[in-house]
Amino acid sequence: MPSFEHQKSKALNDYAASVRVGDVDGKLIPVLDLINSLDDFYTTSSCSGRITLLEDRGGKGLNKFLGKWHRHVTVEEVLNALHSGSGTAWFKCEPPILHVIARTPEKADRLLHEAREAGFKRSGLQSLNDGRNVLELLSTEVIHAPVMAEGEVAVTGEYLKLLVDSANLKLDDGAVKLRRLEERIKSGLK
Amino acid sequence: MPSFEHQKSKALNDYAASVRVGDVDGKLIPVLDLINSLDDFYTTSSCSGRITLLEDRGGKGLNKFLGKWHRHVTVEEVLNALHSGSGTAWFKCEPPILHVIARTPEKADRLLHEAREAGFKRSGLQSLNDGRNVLELLSTEVIHAPVMAEGEVAVTGEYLKLLVDSANLKLDDGAVKLRRLEERIKSGLK
Repeated sequence: MPSFEHQKSKALNDYAASVRVGDVDGKLIPVLDLINSLDDFYTTSSCSGRITLLEDRGGKGLNKFLGKWHRHVTVEEVLNALHSGSGTAWFKCEPPILHVIARTPEKADRLLHEAREAGFKRSGLQSLNDGRNVLELLSTEVIHAPVMAEGEVAVTGEYLKLLVDSANLKLDDGAVKLRRLEERIKSGLK
Repeated sequence: MPSFEHQKSKALNDYAASVRVGDVDGKLIPVLDLINSLDDFYTTSSCSGRITLLEDRGGKGLNKFLGKWHRHVTVEEVLNALHSGSGTAWFKCEPPILHVIARTPEKADRLLHEAREAGFKRSGLQSLNDGRNVLELLSTEVIHAPVMAEGEVAVTGEYLKLLVDSANLKLDDGAVKLRRLEERIKSGLK
């Protein structure tokens, strides 16, 4: 297993490349930059929160995205995406998620504490294998509702509007949590 | 901080008392008994999965359960419970969740691995504070759909039936995962 410094340097190169090609959501960049500026941590795959339409084919590798957005959506674009589906499909809102590698389990625990205080309530240390302490910081803005069953759209226009409005609000709540996470890390870990 | 043995003995007493008064879901008992039979672990609060109706008042302490079931539900009982609500309410299906204390971070990591292999994909070590290594083992059977907005029922009878049928299926899936977790622990940790 390469040293923490070696792993981090490689991860920072990958991160810089992703930022350059516009692959990292602007809402994430301040908090990722902050975490990467700390000696004992670096970030890997992260997402600022998203709205998705998922065709459920019975397993993670088998499922298919009919739509995926990192911004507010409209009823029209969700309906358009849904019409290409078949079988069972779900409308989902997923909260911000950050993956962070910590130098030690103790450092991981410090960050976990700040993350939980910032409202990332579903956070945990996922693995300590071979000295790689992998943290997942996960917030709580969730929607997970069936919208297609047996190939038929299962929601009325009015209910789909409720789903879309709720998801757009939760996306905004997630962005607030990201700023709160940044503040907690600044005051607690820097 | 009391020794691990001391903590465990107290936790086992609490657990036995909960089982005696019928407070522990029968679907959970085999896997909890198994974990508690291992030298390096003991369980705390756990749930085999549930279906809930939650009135959303803007925060965890403020929200109110309109209904909570650890078994299949019918459209009628959900509607009855929903009619006592106001404002915003959500229909939720929550996956099996187990909280386990491990003697060391390394032992925690071993159990995390088996849990993930059993389909408890959202599992993590939540805290290592003061030598108390707190694991949350969480599966993936989730529904989270708005069913009341501004005090009005927001779903048709047909859509509510889809929610109820989906949730009942997911509850069954959760029970299968609990048995799979038991098998993985038996083969990997015993």
